[in-house]
Amino acid sequence: MSSAEPRTVGPDHLWSVDEHLEDVLTTVRPLEPIELHLLDAQGCLLVDDVTVPVSLPPFDNSSMDGYAVRTADVSGASEEFPAVLDVVGDVAAGSAEPLHVGPGQAARIMTGAPLPPGAEAVVPVEWTDGGLGGGPVGAMRARSLHPEGAGGHVRVYRPVEARAHVRAQGSDVKAGDRVLKAGTVLGPAQIALLAAIGRGTVRVRPRPRVVVLSTGSELVQPGERLGPGRIYDSNSFALTAAARDAGAIAYRVGAVTDDADTLRSTIEDQLVRADLLVTTGGVSVGAYDVVKEALSHVGDADEPGGGVEFRKLAMQPGKPQGFGTVGPEHVPLLALPGNPVSAYVSFELFVRPVIRTLMGLPDVHRPTVRATLAADKALASPKGRRQFLRGTYTDGEVRPVGGAGSHLVAALAQADALIVVPEDVESVEPGAEVEVILLG
Amino acid sequence: MSSAEPRTVGPDHLWSVDEHLEDVLTTVRPLEPIELHLLDAQGCLLVDDVTVPVSLPPFDNSSMDGYAVRTADVSGASEEFPAVLDVVGDVAAGSAEPLHVGPGQAARIMTGAPLPPGAEAVVPVEWTDGGLGGGPVGAMRARSLHPEGAGGHVRVYRPVEARAHVRAQGSDVKAGDRVLKAGTVLGPAQIALLAAIGRGTVRVRPRPRVVVLSTGSELVQPGERLGPGRIYDSNSFALTAAARDAGAIAYRVGAVTDDADTLRSTIEDQLVRADLLVTTGGVSVGAYDVVKEALSHVGDADEPGGGVEFRKLAMQPGKPQGFGTVGPEHVPLLALPGNPVSAYVSFELFVRPVIRTLMGLPDVHRPTVRATLAADKALASPKGRRQFLRGTYTDGEVRPVGGAGSHLVAALAQADALIVVPEDVESVEPGAEVEVILLG
Repeated sequence: MSSAEPRTVGPDHLWSVDEHLEDVLTTVRPLEPIELHLLDAQGCLLVDDVTVPVSLPPFDNSSMDGYAVRTADVSGASEEFPAVLDVVGDVAAGSAEPLHVGPGQAARIMTGAPLPPGAEAVVPVEWTDGGLGGGPVGAMRARSLHPEGAGGHVRVYRPVEARAHVRAQGSDVKAGDRVLKAGTVLGPAQIALLAAIGRGTVRVRPRPRVVVLSTGSELVQPGERLGPGRIYDSNSFALTAAARDAGAIAYRVGAVTDDADTLRSTIEDQLVRADLLVTTGGVSVGAYDVVKEALSHVGDADEPGGGVEFRKLAMQPGKPQGFGTVGPEHVPLLALPGNPVSAYVSFELFVRPVIRTLMGLPDVHRPTVRATLAADKALASPKGRRQFLRGTYTDGEVRPVGGAGSHLVAALAQADALIVVPEDVESVEPGAEVEVILLG
Repeated sequence: MSSAEPRTVGPDHLWSVDEHLEDVLTTVRPLEPIELHLLDAQGCLLVDDVTVPVSLPPFDNSSMDGYAVRTADVSGASEEFPAVLDVVGDVAAGSAEPLHVGPGQAARIMTGAPLPPGAEAVVPVEWTDGGLGGGPVGAMRARSLHPEGAGGHVRVYRPVEARAHVRAQGSDVKAGDRVLKAGTVLGPAQIALLAAIGRGTVRVRPRPRVVVLSTGSELVQPGERLGPGRIYDSNSFALTAAARDAGAIAYRVGAVTDDADTLRSTIEDQLVRADLLVTTGGVSVGAYDVVKEALSHVGDADEPGGGVEFRKLAMQPGKPQGFGTVGPEHVPLLALPGNPVSAYVSFELFVRPVIRTLMGLPDVHRPTVRATLAADKALASPKGRRQFLRGTYTDGEVRPVGGAGSHLVAALAQADALIVVPEDVESVEPGAEVEVILLG
């Protein structure tokens, strides 16, 4: 897929996990950036450096509720010998009224309000009588109830140095500073910063829209009656949830019956809202594996770059896999096997990294650790295939849950890790060190 | 709030961080469970044990694409001397047609299809001629293109043991098994299991609906023009994003002006969609701190249990805090200070644990670690107050970013940790061990 070169591997080539993953990840490109409102950009990757248009704070302002004063007027002030100043008015946060503090004057000022011309510092209200004439107070009286507080006199009991309790213009950031680098993932604090510098929108790589559909005539919607020979569809639910967990906007399409035309038209319908398509089932060697049959003819078959290739991978579970692009827009499609554990493990190994690549994120893979195998007996693994067993990981130890069977959903639901057994290993003894993929 | 006992602490009591947190968390109760569709329950806490109504698999079925046979018919089969069997038809997944395999007969069977009566094992298609008469094949031919494959003869080249390639009914889970415990948080694999056992809905504690509003006449919506003395509203964006990160459904209400009636009616309007209210600003000692003024009269003041109490906390940033319940439903409300860093730190310390308590989650707090302080000079911290400085944490080391000022949003956006300096510590030397809260 990734190259215009003719393939050097034939249809019977057994792909390694790494070969398949490389082919997939070199084909998929990050989504084009779009401009989003701040809260829609949460979790997304910033594509441009962000510089500051206007310094923060935009003006000198008070860090306390108190009185804006001239320092000379309060030098030497004490509880015994307070400085007594004329209050010329209030400076509230958001206030745009011009107010000047002259010699012997003070302005009552609120946290965040601009330091008025003439004033050099702020005296916290707790160092004053709050205009009440009765010793130090704990708080101002509410303006709405006591409008007279904005006038009269105030006693100040302590001196202040110039600039005390004043946040200088530009002390947070200065106009022209680069405050966020391209490639930053936007969390709450980065969104706070973007809002604080006045950005209502931001250019990011959007979350990919992932369409998940399962295939199989045996599948019944959970909650409905299970007829003979039928099972409940679990893959479309599990992979929709997993796609969201990976950062995608995921759309679950109900299970599609094993009919090539139905599947083809369903996929064609879904293309309009898909940055990535994920199917489960119908990729193996059976006579009803319609995903294979259907997917070579989706969208405009004459377009170069289209088509899905079906492969055998040297892994367990997850041997049969399909990958390619469909439709005129070459939407990537991963066709996963239908056994629930195979589908889930394949999602973790291949689809999650694709979603994160589409988002442009730096770390597309789950973290891995080395751990000691805690097990009652040796684990057997098929020669020549990389095995991914389900396990639970705690403090450097990993314990298998359930067996190797790819239908063991209950054990999967207990697992928080995958134990990796390499291709050349057929048995792992208890106490041995193994590689573990942490799922959570 | 938590107790009907009269308070033993007066209005001037300086609350410790732990006292305030305990008061908040003992007041807040987990939300009542509701029945949700599986994908709406992602990330939520299961409130009941889940037992299996019907065994999985519900019937013996094939783990391979191949032929269902009687073992005696293929014993001793080899490439040189294959067993030749009559193919009586196809058993596809989802097939409910009765089909019986008698002596000398085989049924072509697909992965997941029920083992037909009479058959004892499955021979993989790769061990047969696939009905084509030309040696071992790699796959079946598609039924839609070659319907004759469901009849004729098949050559089998290897014997199989009884039950080979058959998944036994109940081998995953048996009817009556408890497969998920109450208290499990539902991720993709747990959702897979619920779907697999036929559960279309599940009873969980829902995500809390958190209404976030900022207050301040100085606040301007990002993207609009900034007049003199005004700043952009960042808190409502930051805390909405943080509430979502904590697991909530968050609603951002625009900044409300410093007018008690407006604030009160806004809060009353929002109560209908709020499991939790978070405000910022207006909680300090200024003359325009209308949150204080407004919040003692929200909803039905005659109802017991209502009312918001305003406190001073022995912490920096975040000294002024309000907490209580409002309205006839006693919706919890946290009134945070308005400085952006104070609001964010207060959210992390108090609101995030409330959201996770409402969800019933077991771990309501961020993880903490011990780390070595990497700094050029000693950190100063106010006596008697627990300080939370912003820092970056890597490999056991934490480095402060920015200073202690609660207006330093740019530094906050670089931080991934909070450095905790205890109440009785006034200076921390470089190289000292400190407690660190990991934010991410």
